[in-house]
Amino acid sequence: MFLRIDKLGVELPPSKFDPTAAAAVQELMGGRFGEMSTLNNYLHQSASMRAKRQLGPFYELVASITAEEVGHVELVAAGINALLDKAPDDEDPEAAPFEDNETPRINQHFIMGGPGHLVANSQGAPWSGDYVFNSGNLVMDLLHNFFLETGARSHKARVYEMTSNETARTLIGYLLVRGGVHQAAYGLALEKLTGVKMTKMLPVPNIDNARFPHTQPWEKKGEHTRLYTFSPSDYQHLGGIWSGKADWADGKPLQVVKGHPEGFDAPEGTPHHAGFAPDHEPGEIFEIAKRLMKNM
Amino acid sequence: MFLRIDKLGVELPPSKFDPTAAAAVQELMGGRFGEMSTLNNYLHQSASMRAKRQLGPFYELVASITAEEVGHVELVAAGINALLDKAPDDEDPEAAPFEDNETPRINQHFIMGGPGHLVANSQGAPWSGDYVFNSGNLVMDLLHNFFLETGARSHKARVYEMTSNETARTLIGYLLVRGGVHQAAYGLALEKLTGVKMTKMLPVPNIDNARFPHTQPWEKKGEHTRLYTFSPSDYQHLGGIWSGKADWADGKPLQVVKGHPEGFDAPEGTPHHAGFAPDHEPGEIFEIAKRLMKNM
Amino acid sequence: MFLRIDKLGVELPPSKFDPTAAAAVQELMGGRFGEMSTLNNYLHQSASMRAKRQLGPFYELVASITAEEVGHVELVAAGINALLDKAPDDEDPEAAPFEDNETPRINQHFIMGGPGHLVANSQGAPWSGDYVFNSGNLVMDLLHNFFLETGARSHKARVYEMTSNETARTLIGYLLVRGGVHQAAYGLALEKLTGVKMTKMLPVPNIDNARFPHTQPWEKKGEHTRLYTFSPSDYQHLGGIWSGKADWADGKPLQVVKGHPEGFDAPEGTPHHAGFAPDHEPGEIFEIAKRLMKNM
Amino acid sequence: MFLRIDKLGVELPPSKFDPTAAAAVQELMGGRFGEMSTLNNYLHQSASMRAKRQLGPFYELVASITAEEVGHVELVAAGINALLDKAPDDEDPEAAPFEDNETPRINQHFIMGGPGHLVANSQGAPWSGDYVFNSGNLVMDLLHNFFLETGARSHKARVYEMTSNETARTLIGYLLVRGGVHQAAYGLALEKLTGVKMTKMLPVPNIDNARFPHTQPWEKKGEHTRLYTFSPSDYQHLGGIWSGKADWADGKPLQVVKGHPEGFDAPEGTPHHAGFAPDHEPGEIFEIAKRLMKNM
Amino acid sequence: MFLRIDKLGVELPPSKFDPTAAAAVQELMGGRFGEMSTLNNYLHQSASMRAKRQLGPFYELVASITAEEVGHVELVAAGINALLDKAPDDEDPEAAPFEDNETPRINQHFIMGGPGHLVANSQGAPWSGDYVFNSGNLVMDLLHNFFLETGARSHKARVYEMTSNETARTLIGYLLVRGGVHQAAYGLALEKLTGVKMTKMLPVPNIDNARFPHTQPWEKKGEHTRLYTFSPSDYQHLGGIWSGKADWADGKPLQVVKGHPEGFDAPEGTPHHAGFAPDHEPGEIFEIAKRLMKNM
Amino acid sequence: MFLRIDKLGVELPPSKFDPTAAAAVQELMGGRFGEMSTLNNYLHQSASMRAKRQLGPFYELVASITAEEVGHVELVAAGINALLDKAPDDEDPEAAPFEDNETPRINQHFIMGGPGHLVANSQGAPWSGDYVFNSGNLVMDLLHNFFLETGARSHKARVYEMTSNETARTLIGYLLVRGGVHQAAYGLALEKLTGVKMTKMLPVPNIDNARFPHTQPWEKKGEHTRLYTFSPSDYQHLGGIWSGKADWADGKPLQVVKGHPEGFDAPEGTPHHAGFAPDHEPGEIFEIAKRLMKNM
Repeated sequence: MFLRIDKLGVELPPSKFDPTAAAAVQELMGGRFGEMSTLNNYLHQSASMRAKRQLGPFYELVASITAEEVGHVELVAAGINALLDKAPDDEDPEAAPFEDNETPRINQHFIMGGPGHLVANSQGAPWSGDYVFNSGNLVMDLLHNFFLETGARSHKARVYEMTSNETARTLIGYLLVRGGVHQAAYGLALEKLTGVKMTKMLPVPNIDNARFPHTQPWEKKGEHTRLYTFSPSDYQHLGGIWSGKADWADGKPLQVVKGHPEGFDAPEGTPHHAGFAPDHEPGEIFEIAKRLMKNM
Repeated sequence: MFLRIDKLGVELPPSKFDPTAAAAVQELMGGRFGEMSTLNNYLHQSASMRAKRQLGPFYELVASITAEEVGHVELVAAGINALLDKAPDDEDPEAAPFEDNETPRINQHFIMGGPGHLVANSQGAPWSGDYVFNSGNLVMDLLHNFFLETGARSHKARVYEMTSNETARTLIGYLLVRGGVHQAAYGLALEKLTGVKMTKMLPVPNIDNARFPHTQPWEKKGEHTRLYTFSPSDYQHLGGIWSGKADWADGKPLQVVKGHPEGFDAPEGTPHHAGFAPDHEPGEIFEIAKRLMKNM
Repeated sequence: MFLRIDKLGVELPPSKFDPTAAAAVQELMGGRFGEMSTLNNYLHQSASMRAKRQLGPFYELVASITAEEVGHVELVAAGINALLDKAPDDEDPEAAPFEDNETPRINQHFIMGGPGHLVANSQGAPWSGDYVFNSGNLVMDLLHNFFLETGARSHKARVYEMTSNETARTLIGYLLVRGGVHQAAYGLALEKLTGVKMTKMLPVPNIDNARFPHTQPWEKKGEHTRLYTFSPSDYQHLGGIWSGKADWADGKPLQVVKGHPEGFDAPEGTPHHAGFAPDHEPGEIFEIAKRLMKNM
Repeated sequence: MFLRIDKLGVELPPSKFDPTAAAAVQELMGGRFGEMSTLNNYLHQSASMRAKRQLGPFYELVASITAEEVGHVELVAAGINALLDKAPDDEDPEAAPFEDNETPRINQHFIMGGPGHLVANSQGAPWSGDYVFNSGNLVMDLLHNFFLETGARSHKARVYEMTSNETARTLIGYLLVRGGVHQAAYGLALEKLTGVKMTKMLPVPNIDNARFPHTQPWEKKGEHTRLYTFSPSDYQHLGGIWSGKADWADGKPLQVVKGHPEGFDAPEGTPHHAGFAPDHEPGEIFEIAKRLMKNM
Repeated sequence: MFLRIDKLGVELPPSKFDPTAAAAVQELMGGRFGEMSTLNNYLHQSASMRAKRQLGPFYELVASITAEEVGHVELVAAGINALLDKAPDDEDPEAAPFEDNETPRINQHFIMGGPGHLVANSQGAPWSGDYVFNSGNLVMDLLHNFFLETGARSHKARVYEMTSNETARTLIGYLLVRGGVHQAAYGLALEKLTGVKMTKMLPVPNIDNARFPHTQPWEKKGEHTRLYTFSPSDYQHLGGIWSGKADWADGKPLQVVKGHPEGFDAPEGTPHHAGFAPDHEPGEIFEIAKRLMKNM
Repeated sequence: MFLRIDKLGVELPPSKFDPTAAAAVQELMGGRFGEMSTLNNYLHQSASMRAKRQLGPFYELVASITAEEVGHVELVAAGINALLDKAPDDEDPEAAPFEDNETPRINQHFIMGGPGHLVANSQGAPWSGDYVFNSGNLVMDLLHNFFLETGARSHKARVYEMTSNETARTLIGYLLVRGGVHQAAYGLALEKLTGVKMTKMLPVPNIDNARFPHTQPWEKKGEHTRLYTFSPSDYQHLGGIWSGKADWADGKPLQVVKGHPEGFDAPEGTPHHAGFAPDHEPGEIFEIAKRLMKNM
């Protein structure tokens, strides 16, 4: 079972309207190496793993990271929506507020949403359940996960290079740090199982997080060394895997933290007439909501 | 952000090997109206909704049901895996333990997993991000969700009719009750917004839950009247929508419950030689895991 | 614009429940060479053709065959549904009327419909708009259409060989004859344009319709020599292409017929409790419909 | 069976070359809520409905709207092609007439067609048979259709806002009115069956057609109150559902019209050298067509 | 550039008709880890690698294995076709030679081919270009390839367990050995680059080839230690990577062989009346072919 | 079996960075009529053809063209990569070297590769195994192949018209000539089998290669008249089909050439920091490669 807290992992600064950046960031949502993929790989692997208790920390690692990844999906969604939040608006459809003959963008951001994000990659192609690898074999699953996080890291880095938008980069900086923790954790798990020193391969691609300035606030806080249980009660054996030092980075000690990191309020989201979001004239809806809250 | 608790919403009885039932139940996982669809519709809608605070209980309804749906995905996964858990096994590949020329089944259950479930429908076709409707418009999203839960209810009912397997039916009975809560809740939300009495349409399809005996233990407990916040702290205004009586059912009073229902241990999962799950001879892996847990 | 007449091109005999045949016949619906493909290729080609009037009979040929093909889609649908019409039924879901561990069938026939057909091929994979070839170039479009009808003919023949079901074969016999007319017509059009004697290649594959007994009632009526305008008013120049003799068959004279062939009532369709089709207990619905018809 | 009349529902004004608008309008062709979806949902539902005669006007409603929708598909095709009709041309390929490094457009409009439309959405992704919902259950099918037309209405409105192109808006204005009739008709059908006042929800999204000026010529003619049988002979009981007043609009009386509305000639389409459409030098083809028409 | 030799890598024994085995083996053709995937990953990686000459043996390794993989695709095709070669046949379509209501099989084997294989997986779903990972980054590509061969090995092993068919197992035994060479080679390449001892992880899954008897004839010949250049002239630096001993197996010395292994004649393929393959009555075709060969 | 030679069929001139041309050329890689389609159609047809020896030159034609097509796939890949080779670069990710808000391009060229090509069409949609037609029937396969090469010729011509980039046009000029040979060869094969003079239809579309200047160097060399065996030893009966004169072109005598044409070195490919291709700082990798080559 899962619980939800109405917070995001990172505070997203407001952004100017930036549909080109929004298109690029979609890859981190619904691409083969996006957050929908990390979430669903770990969710489905943890649900189907055999001999769960006997696998102890190996099961718990995959199970607990799953919870963090649901939050990453909502975070990337919030990021894309922040880039689309201030789309040109007009109460009058005849003004063609969504018209644009110049900027590369994803048409469906404007037709499907208000405007809003898609469960799709940077081409607008939908995420597919085919991206889930769930072999039942522990070594293969961990090797896959290490590879998945490696591909994910490179895509985050390249999308960073596709936009100078501060909101997008704030999002990506955080994901680079947290994804890096997962990459290393799967590497360590493989080391425990096979003796092969996977973390010696890090960083892959061979460029330090330090080269991406938006990772630095998080590394300074030590977020690259912390693995959270993301549970009020369970997954108590993660320290069997996540312990020792971050040899692949600054060598600081690795720590398991019970529970979850402090969160931040999600961007409110600006009502949009042209997108009918939440309605063309949402005043009445807001009234109803207010009344319902009072009458409780 | 999301937290995870190492429990399932229902206690799944062990099953004989039943690959035909497993194939049918896949529709409830990765079909257009399966749990992957309910989860992702609500997750992405809640992440992109504009004017979240002003929408109050409307936002909170979608946001909090999301958390329950992540748990439903893992639950359906557990159900399918229970049906595949006791697949024929043999340490010797030459014995062709997976050979079967008679039973309708999904080949990839045996090739992809150990054996295990897919993120796919009853034809083995992967779930697609295209199944998410996220319009930004509150009335349309609620209308969609009411329709989605209606389609989902009919598919649960028909899959129930496709198998007499007790494990599958236990799973489906629970989902019928909890999905019915969501269907009614979206109907009530539409009523508050538009004045249209959607819940008068229930049940759709027009057959009572009582006709599906495996729903009865849950209805007796009152689970058809309870909406959980699935949060340790948030979504406190659900009562603005979920209140009054269950007119579409037995007329009992509707109640919002803070937090989550009690859960049950997930099936452990039996190691499988032929599936190399978690390995062909997993003994050493279990040893390592044990040692890691001791050394913490 | 299109008009509809509440008739089918062929009288479909009732069938025993035959889900295996239904699965095979799906290829003629939603396969790359099924009726969805012939319909949509001609519909979209005729809509986008440039210099329509100057192309005269070439435009009209594609445009008028389109109308026949919409009817073929509904006909194949009717055929598949006839094969599923008498699916096991029970008012009590607990009886598991849809359970079957032996027969190869398409699961979604029972989950999606009541039971009913899909817009998919014999694997249950959905038809795709990618199957439409619409090049704008007249010779290429005609060459494509000749090839499409050739592939379609072979698939009809092979599906015929996959089932001895009388209903399925009645359907296929008719489609073989009418598809043969279209194949020859596109061949003749190419001959007029390029001088290449395409019809000399017929029959492809090299087996006479006479070997499929269910084609014979239609050939005896001369249906293999008739091209209908399928219009109350238009497409008057088809004779520019469809004239002379059926050299590829029995040498009978080709004739253009204004309007459409006589049709037959579609199968009524049996209400199905387990499928909730049109409802679990449809009596009330029938009452309402009756009253509405009276009150007009 | 279907008949075809060589007319379109609306007179499309010629357009300057507008590939960006063409890309946006594709959503109304092959998107999940485009005309391919409305057509195919109603075509396949009407073909598979059980107890057709007993369902009377409910069956006839779906069956007759199908015929109008085939015409909408060809109409949207004509619209997109009008936007592409005057694409830059040159007899000499070396002049690179299709080159453009600035304008957002769909590459395949130029590679697949001459140039011409696709059976795809605004991202160029093909329409899929997976978009058809055909449950066999009458209430669910009608609820789906009401939702489908609701989604379709919002997409038409948003595409209207994406372009100030007069041809595109003329097309969309007409579709908004006719789609609105279908949305209301399915709402009324649901009301008759369930007593739930669905039309009270209209308009969804909550913005009047009057805000889209290109709907007004059609509303003035009363096209928002007319339901055509689109048949020379059948579907005589539509008045059982479509009667009373248009409460959701201007309150005018609803009328069923036997047959079809007057139509307009489709745009001829300009030959295009660079697209080889209908050929690089089509003169000879036109000669052949002329001769064939004379020789009849 | 590529050259072809009219031989297969293995001699395939004839098989009884075995459509269930044919369906399973399709996964090794068109599944995410099938031979279409290994071929296309290496083909496209080698074509897009930057600084080819400077990468020397790393480039050459990927480039030369590509050539072997084209041969593996044709080999798996030959294998599936051998399993379908003796499908029931009859000159008379009315005999319904393809009818079968019992055996799990892929319908399209009979409708698409004569009968014959598909470019699809064990569900009949087509192979997709999305399965190609081509990052431009050498370490990531090699890590991917090691993982791909690992997944491929497990799928070969599990398909082996799904069939006792001798032809299928002969095919799989060979592929296990040759795929094992590629898995180890990519592991060694990673070791040279990063110092991480990937081959220490082998075998993954943790079961020896010796447990699959059909690998043994090839291991006895030493085929698990040989890397061929598959070129008459190029890829001379493979020894930079493939040298030393097969520590992960029997410790025998690794050798690079210039050129290609001796091959075997492909199965001829039996003409099939019902499949029209190569025609319903192919006699005339054979005559023409004979005459053409004489007249040269 | 296949062998590889480290050469390309054409010498590709270096190009300025041209992502718009790269996007268009993708259609010739992974579109329905791209080189992935020609390669895989012939590869899979030749592998599954029944009565191979008795079909003599018909089998050999398809089998030997396959080998040339593998080379065309790598050639188109090389072409697209040449257009992306000089993408803006910077060692510092913060400089956002991949940012571009103006140029139409495929986002995934920058996220997936370094930058690099995709196995996809001009919309970025992946190539699908569904594009393979492999009927088992010789006449149908040849008719398909003639049609496929016809569609391919038109797409090459239109992509030529979409770019004035010299590198792209050099590539396309060559493909037009070689594809034209395959189109004519399949036409001739059909003529031998059926007596229908397919080559009389050429050129389709009706515009001479001479209008595309980049074809002329190859036609002057006579490459439009040569069919290579692309084999060191086999396919000796091609002259049974490929003989006589090129009536559809300049009437020069057709010749079969044993072996393959002379080739050219592939572009080296420039290392790219921002793409981490082959690494962010590849110096160390080059050192390792150098040492490995020395130590052999």
